[in-house]
Amino acid sequence: MMKVPVLEIFGPTFQGEGAVIGQKTMFVRTAGCDYQCSWCDSKFTWDGSQQENIRMMTADDIFASLDALAEGNYNHVTISGGNPLLLKNLREFVESAKAKGVKLAVETQGTMYQDWLQGIDDVTISPKPPSSGMVTDYGKLDYIFTKLDESGTAYNLKVVIFDEEDFEYAVHMHQKYAKVDFYLQVGNPYLDGEDIENHTEKLLNRYENLVDRTMRDSRVNDVRVLPQLHTLLWSNKQGV
Amino acid sequence: MMKVPVLEIFGPTFQGEGAVIGQKTMFVRTAGCDYQCSWCDSKFTWDGSQQENIRMMTADDIFASLDALAEGNYNHVTISGGNPLLLKNLREFVESAKAKGVKLAVETQGTMYQDWLQGIDDVTISPKPPSSGMVTDYGKLDYIFTKLDESGTAYNLKVVIFDEEDFEYAVHMHQKYAKVDFYLQVGNPYLDGEDIENHTEKLLNRYENLVDRTMRDSRVNDVRVLPQLHTLLWSNKQGV
Repeated sequence: MMKVPVLEIFGPTFQGEGAVIGQKTMFVRTAGCDYQCSWCDSKFTWDGSQQENIRMMTADDIFASLDALAEGNYNHVTISGGNPLLLKNLREFVESAKAKGVKLAVETQGTMYQDWLQGIDDVTISPKPPSSGMVTDYGKLDYIFTKLDESGTAYNLKVVIFDEEDFEYAVHMHQKYAKVDFYLQVGNPYLDGEDIENHTEKLLNRYENLVDRTMRDSRVNDVRVLPQLHTLLWSNKQGV
Repeated sequence: MMKVPVLEIFGPTFQGEGAVIGQKTMFVRTAGCDYQCSWCDSKFTWDGSQQENIRMMTADDIFASLDALAEGNYNHVTISGGNPLLLKNLREFVESAKAKGVKLAVETQGTMYQDWLQGIDDVTISPKPPSSGMVTDYGKLDYIFTKLDESGTAYNLKVVIFDEEDFEYAVHMHQKYAKVDFYLQVGNPYLDGEDIENHTEKLLNRYENLVDRTMRDSRVNDVRVLPQLHTLLWSNKQGV
């Protein structure tokens, strides 16, 4: 049986961001990432701080955990990370979900491809802008999009925006892949603790600025601009 | 030339709710409604209070107004009301938009059908729950869905929730039309003025309650739960 490193399983909750925003879902968060974004909101998946919580799990193990939390009360699971695309062994979980009629979403930064992506209902590719400190490999992105197009898998692009340089990066990305549904997401720079004072107000101010910026720019007429709804409700609390 | 009664045209702004949440768009708000919902947030479209602002406009007039606001800076228009489906004459505007490559969305409560609906990219049908004081005619809903299915038009269902009775109405609606994408939206009962004190906090509390209610109920596993983002940012301000 194929095993994958899982850091947390929780839900039912709702997807707070991106193309499937608002969806009732369970979350399976895998451990490990090939990036180290400066503003990562899930650093515990790769910085070793929660190393002792990682469990090596089979598809059956994962579904047993999901059912212990919410048997009969979910039919959608979001695979998040870290970068789940590091894990070739997720194939069995994806196949098992499809057999059960459970829908799947995944988010990844667009550096890796696995064949199990073809079994995902909603694939979000979220390349990281300059403020992350990471550098985009467009060759790898092109390869992933080609594979997803070949298999008819639905996907979208999402870029998190912290500053003007990030915005220009997003515009470039949108123009380069003009036919792909495109989401701008306001960044959350307030990561020091689980409960930030006036977090909602601070984030909505940044969201309003991103909305204004987008409305003034004719290069981004066909985009969607969204906040992270879970952070508006629950600040940086983990496991919700 | 066909004319329609228009109450306001504004943008570019973003769609704050529903299936196209976050989309950069222009708004064309038509006058007149066959409903009088108790908590309607656009009563001025039917209560006569802004009667003097209604303009009878052709498709060319509407595009001239849109271009005066944002020429080259939009490619999506949301037709809102009131109930735009009262207006057979919107056909020319819809055809004109398609010819220009401008995408269209419309929202209606599901009491009327017009052939121009087939030219809309995203149709939101939003039947009104008991708290509105209105009564749903399921025969009319069935007829509209049949026509939309026949023409292959994309549509979704959205129900606004104020109380437990509304929630049960939404569950019934979701179960009756199980294959239709379904959105639960938290209601805004704070309509007394353009700027409500602590409006964001009040609405997020109600949103969190609706999220919790949905997560506990296995009859609504495949739904999306959303707030109105524009109201979180701008309270009840008109024309944004």
